[in-house]
Amino acid sequence: MDKARERENGSIVQLPRANPLHVICNISRSDIAIIPVYFPPGAAHQSSLQKPKIPFKAHYFPQLLDHFTFQPQSSKIFYQKYLINDRFWRRGRPIFVYTGNEGDIEWFAANTGFMLDIAPKFQALLVFIEHRFYGESMPFGKDSYKSAKTLGYLTSQQALADFAVLLRSLKRNLSTEASPVVVFGGSYGGMLAAWFRLKYPHIAIGALASSAPILQFDDITPWSSFYDAVSKDYRELARTESSIGSKRRVGRTKQNFQNLQGPPIGGLCARLVMAAFVYTAMVNYPTEANFMMPLPAYPVKAMCKIIDGFSPRASKLSRAFAAASLYYNYSKTEKCFNIEHGTDSHGLHGWDWQEKLHKLEKLGLVEQACTEMVMPMTCSNGSMFPPSSFDYKEFAENCRKKYGVAPRPHWITTEFGGS
Amino acid sequence: MDKARERENGSIVQLPRANPLHVICNISRSDIAIIPVYFPPGAAHQSSLQKPKIPFKAHYFPQLLDHFTFQPQSSKIFYQKYLINDRFWRRGRPIFVYTGNEGDIEWFAANTGFMLDIAPKFQALLVFIEHRFYGESMPFGKDSYKSAKTLGYLTSQQALADFAVLLRSLKRNLSTEASPVVVFGGSYGGMLAAWFRLKYPHIAIGALASSAPILQFDDITPWSSFYDAVSKDYRELARTESSIGSKRRVGRTKQNFQNLQGPPIGGLCARLVMAAFVYTAMVNYPTEANFMMPLPAYPVKAMCKIIDGFSPRASKLSRAFAAASLYYNYSKTEKCFNIEHGTDSHGLHGWDWQEKLHKLEKLGLVEQACTEMVMPMTCSNGSMFPPSSFDYKEFAENCRKKYGVAPRPHWITTEFGGS
Repeated sequence: MDKARERENGSIVQLPRANPLHVICNISRSDIAIIPVYFPPGAAHQSSLQKPKIPFKAHYFPQLLDHFTFQPQSSKIFYQKYLINDRFWRRGRPIFVYTGNEGDIEWFAANTGFMLDIAPKFQALLVFIEHRFYGESMPFGKDSYKSAKTLGYLTSQQALADFAVLLRSLKRNLSTEASPVVVFGGSYGGMLAAWFRLKYPHIAIGALASSAPILQFDDITPWSSFYDAVSKDYRELARTESSIGSKRRVGRTKQNFQNLQGPPIGGLCARLVMAAFVYTAMVNYPTEANFMMPLPAYPVKAMCKIIDGFSPRASKLSRAFAAASLYYNYSKTEKCFNIEHGTDSHGLHGWDWQEKLHKLEKLGLVEQACTEMVMPMTCSNGSMFPPSSFDYKEFAENCRKKYGVAPRPHWITTEFGGS
Repeated sequence: MDKARERENGSIVQLPRANPLHVICNISRSDIAIIPVYFPPGAAHQSSLQKPKIPFKAHYFPQLLDHFTFQPQSSKIFYQKYLINDRFWRRGRPIFVYTGNEGDIEWFAANTGFMLDIAPKFQALLVFIEHRFYGESMPFGKDSYKSAKTLGYLTSQQALADFAVLLRSLKRNLSTEASPVVVFGGSYGGMLAAWFRLKYPHIAIGALASSAPILQFDDITPWSSFYDAVSKDYRELARTESSIGSKRRVGRTKQNFQNLQGPPIGGLCARLVMAAFVYTAMVNYPTEANFMMPLPAYPVKAMCKIIDGFSPRASKLSRAFAAASLYYNYSKTEKCFNIEHGTDSHGLHGWDWQEKLHKLEKLGLVEQACTEMVMPMTCSNGSMFPPSSFDYKEFAENCRKKYGVAPRPHWITTEFGGS
């Protein structure tokens, strides 16, 4: 039976009855994370199976720890990873640069199409630069995430300066100083691409920023717009099929989340299920893809089908879990197990999930969210999620407790504009 | 006699026979500074007599120590001084901002004309912001210059971010968020104005940069251009009067410097005399002014007159000292004394001078010259100064010894462009 299911990989599949989410959702309420989910859990998912479409050669650039001060520690050097492919390049022709975001740079190289597609036409050099504090580019090795003393150097401005210094050196080393540089990026990487063009116009002649929420700061964009957009995805997709089904589904999903939040199931579980809905909307690509998780083409549609396909007597939780499992286990590479029959090894596997979630919260953008990347997000009454507000005071207090830092909520708009 | 001389103040005066320079020029060779003179010794000269043409009100803004990291110390607050005059202002109308450079902000406010002249026409608010680590804006009080641990926060990028944060807050507090901001500055302040417009176009719609050597980095501008321009001043001025006299004078001056550099007079003395020639060229204003020192109108012409006015039998040293004394003691507020008749109190006065010079070297731009503001300058054979080269290795080694920092000679062009 399992073998047969695995062969189905690539189409929309029936759910495994036993579900890793069941294990996770027994976790106690004290584990509830306080920081909302913003971005794909990039660093948490680094499948060894992902390979770029063309081969890249990895290099390591001796990078300065702190570009903006001259403290005794500022001049410390760390090694920043970057990838190069010169298959299409002719000296003097453009350099296309991916401004790496929160994750292993190999992961972005494996999931970027457009730059590679247009490189032959422009005879462009392809460069993917890893963001400091991600992948292998750890300024303090294993201690990089230890405390604000090390992690304090993880900021977008330092990352932009890294790109500038590295690119200038690279162009000189390749004797191609006249090559125009165009930067590309998606999500936080898109923000970096746009900001790099703003701040370093003498280095980049253009930027392509995709899905980059550079206006999600201060009060530029309504705080509810993100979760409203996710909800709209689920609604609009359904509208093309059955508008009655759509409304019912959104109503149902909202109720599910409300049920999930109460004891005994607890907030972590609700978060995981909600994350599945949110992330799936974020990667609702028209083709099968494996950016955050392996997913079929049009995964939002696939999720809706799962929810609608249950018998009317099925519990709301089952529906939500089933839909969420499309996100977490579409590839079936995660072993199925049931908490009731649990063995230690399975249990550990469950803990590994929790580890991933904790890692996700400890890593990168969540930390950056507590410093400069303060992007207030709320769920409006009209969304498919339970209404929620953003309490800045509480948020700042939690950041202080968790990381010992004070957020600077107006810094990004001061530094990069936007309003 | 002295009283009579003091009454002459305002015209080109005869030199006092006894000269503070004579005292200073007995200082031993070990005191020779290794860093060339770049900028006006702003911080060293803060005459209490200088008053702005219009009254300013001083304010103190709670400023962040480090805008670009989240180290435990980064969020420390210091008080940044700024001056405001709203005599001409109407809410919603422009804000003219002087981006303070290396000195007490009152000094710049007292020596800035253009902003004040045009303010009534534009109904503009006038704001002068002091640069961190100058004047009263000391992040660590009296310990600010103690070591790289404190002084490491003195960088142009931190200063620009200070301006951005302060201006955003000021505009909000004055309920004048639509007011366009135009930044003004001279010398290093002009560089800051230009860079502010480049990096913060969402805050400043324009910049006026005066005498701002933003291209004096790396190899953008010939390294000899500064001292060539100074020499040209002395030559060209003379050309309008007597071209033979001009050539002779330049040749003579060069020889003087060569004599001054040898023992027993030593390099510090040569530096002081040379500084007088250089600074006088830098402030060769067509009116009497008191920017760096009180000086008559067209002070270069006045200096040339002094040199040419000596009897042919006068020593070369006397001529050079006499000319230099125009710069150091035009106002006659510095008491005259002779080392041969020296008393302790006079000696102390001499030490005060040395103190000033030491302070000049320890302060601000000289420190910044050892970090980011690496502006290689040489004296060409064609200049009026003894030929000199720029040895980066030696320069960097001296910076390490003096301040414990490693210069970043390519950083400014990476951060701000220019080539």
